[in-house]
Amino acid sequence: ESTKHSLSFLIKYFALTQFSEIREMGCKVPQHILQQYLENLQESRFEEDDLFFGPGMPRLGIGMDTCVVPLRHRGLSLVQTTDFIYPIVDDPYMMGRIACANVLSDLYAVGVTKCDSMLMLLGVSNKMTGKERDKIIPLIIKGYKDVAEKAGTTITGGHTILNPWILVGGVATTVCQTNCFIMPDNAVPGDVLVLTKPLGTQVAVAVHQWLDNPEKWNKIKLVVTEEEVELAYQEAITNMDRLNRTAANLMHIFNAHAATDITGFGILGHAQNLVRQQRNEVSFVIHNLPVIAKMAAVSKARGEMFGLVHGMCPETSGGLLICLPREQAARFCAEIKSPRYGKGHQAWIIGIVEKGSRTARIIEKPRIIDVTSSQSTSQNVSPAVPP
Amino acid sequence: ESTKHSLSFLIKYFALTQFSEIREMGCKVPQHILQQYLENLQESRFEEDDLFFGPGMPRLGIGMDTCVVPLRHRGLSLVQTTDFIYPIVDDPYMMGRIACANVLSDLYAVGVTKCDSMLMLLGVSNKMTGKERDKIIPLIIKGYKDVAEKAGTTITGGHTILNPWILVGGVATTVCQTNCFIMPDNAVPGDVLVLTKPLGTQVAVAVHQWLDNPEKWNKIKLVVTEEEVELAYQEAITNMDRLNRTAANLMHIFNAHAATDITGFGILGHAQNLVRQQRNEVSFVIHNLPVIAKMAAVSKARGEMFGLVHGMCPETSGGLLICLPREQAARFCAEIKSPRYGKGHQAWIIGIVEKGSRTARIIEKPRIIDVTSSQSTSQNVSPAVPP
Repeated sequence: ESTKHSLSFLIKYFALTQFSEIREMGCKVPQHILQQYLENLQESRFEEDDLFFGPGMPRLGIGMDTCVVPLRHRGLSLVQTTDFIYPIVDDPYMMGRIACANVLSDLYAVGVTKCDSMLMLLGVSNKMTGKERDKIIPLIIKGYKDVAEKAGTTITGGHTILNPWILVGGVATTVCQTNCFIMPDNAVPGDVLVLTKPLGTQVAVAVHQWLDNPEKWNKIKLVVTEEEVELAYQEAITNMDRLNRTAANLMHIFNAHAATDITGFGILGHAQNLVRQQRNEVSFVIHNLPVIAKMAAVSKARGEMFGLVHGMCPETSGGLLICLPREQAARFCAEIKSPRYGKGHQAWIIGIVEKGSRTARIIEKPRIIDVTSSQSTSQNVSPAVPP
Repeated sequence: ESTKHSLSFLIKYFALTQFSEIREMGCKVPQHILQQYLENLQESRFEEDDLFFGPGMPRLGIGMDTCVVPLRHRGLSLVQTTDFIYPIVDDPYMMGRIACANVLSDLYAVGVTKCDSMLMLLGVSNKMTGKERDKIIPLIIKGYKDVAEKAGTTITGGHTILNPWILVGGVATTVCQTNCFIMPDNAVPGDVLVLTKPLGTQVAVAVHQWLDNPEKWNKIKLVVTEEEVELAYQEAITNMDRLNRTAANLMHIFNAHAATDITGFGILGHAQNLVRQQRNEVSFVIHNLPVIAKMAAVSKARGEMFGLVHGMCPETSGGLLICLPREQAARFCAEIKSPRYGKGHQAWIIGIVEKGSRTARIIEKPRIIDVTSSQSTSQNVSPAVPP
């Protein structure tokens, strides 16, 4: 009975026939190609903005997580994002939850903490029987809805199609004054980089599937136990399911200068996106990589096939990468652990902002921080600022 | 060279392997099943609206083309829609144009004429080579962008994934005062129903593909010529590419009581959706079906496999179905032909609104109006009100 509630037949189809072929891009078109495609999309008539909306109304367009559009109603901006993903976990309800957290994450990345409205996008697989569909789809919808409610927003519409693969995603929209969001373009030399979830979500999910694949399991069984894989998988799910809303709130309190969320392009891809957006001539240097426990070792045992330590491994519903003033960053990391924000979660200082030509890089031998359950490690990792 | 700019390899894949299997639902999950899924999604706490937003702020949720959400900023509403479709024409540039018109159509259906912001959703086929992708995708994007500009809006973001099938769509959003939109719930007995584009877009596209399929062509060649099929295809493209913006404008001038746009559920499916939304106890009765020339005959020759005269045939970027006061409807149909709105287009009075229990139906033998090029017929079809 319970297997009928499972997405595994689709994940397997997806994983076995497609994952190896597209793993490096995580179902994304390669970043540099996408940038070429989108080059001509950006509007050139933004100079008119100052005339029309009054001077200084911020605008954020193609290429970042979220768009910020000045509205005709003076002082208000439209902040909006869309995202959709394929099933990566076996449980349809959890899949819906993660997809919703993943959509909202783009709003949180610009410090928006209140979402006015969500839409849901759903691709129903034409490979499912009617019976499978009738059990699975309502569970996905319920998961999506429950997380929307947890985030204090409501689903007001959407669109559903038939597609070979299941698709789950949506749109998140807020209309707000300019002080409700933080434009991601104000990093200054001396800032540090903070990350609010460990990396390795998609590695943990893939490795978990290898438990059923002796050939692949044999290649990693010397560096990881079955139990560690199960724990890593649970840790990945816990993190993907978690909203970045607390982090967005704290961005205002601790004067964040810029942020992005980590998803399909990996931490380095998104860091590069963010640094190109900066008004000051800065570069980002990443020293530490917090990774779900054992996933860096597994990745190494497989010849870095995931690109994890190179910052190229795609994440789903990853954490925020935030540029914070150095003196505020440790306080941010302490505060986010506070029980007043639910279970209390970790954040890590992972790098620095220095003078530079808008590049982002990871140092040659980054320190890998093996992250076990958020709670158990919260006492023993100090948010040490890199030298 | 030009074939490299074509989507035909995908359309064929799509058409031959999938179209027959899902044609009746037009890549949609069946309407009644979707309604079950979405039943629990609608929020119950809308009663709080009056307290929070002040009395009488309109709200439109799941199930209609567009959502209308009252905002925290007094007097303003968020009007928003999302849609995406698969390739249905061979020319990627035209495909982008049609997809954009199709997204915007949902806004126009509630009388919104100014879109503040669009997002673009793109599924890039993993069956394309890099070379195909680099030629085709920028053309789709350009088409989408050009129509967004024509509509006076800009694309501010979006999301791109790899998918077995190409997907093109987006999100259209406006923030406006309540007088800028027309809630689709105010039809009264005595109103008439007006349609602003002919039906049969997807029939024309399918039949056009049959020109290359002798087996299928043989079944219809007695009722239609190759030239007529080409003309029907062109007429379908012209109509799918056309914005419903003029119609949305005229809805305000002629006091429209409710409207919807005709897409995946066919005219009857959308009429049923709309009638269920009405505050008054009304029913819709459709007497006339304007259909792209010869497509009704083709449909009949194939045993009504498309469901065209039963109102079940999906359309792409179809017209608006508008409830208008009887005395205004003829003036609406005359005005929309005016050269001041570009080429001038037709609209037809196709049915009546009567007292009833919120059902919609087509009379047993509806009058089929064979529509040839919009211009050539514009003088000889009178918008006669059905008896």
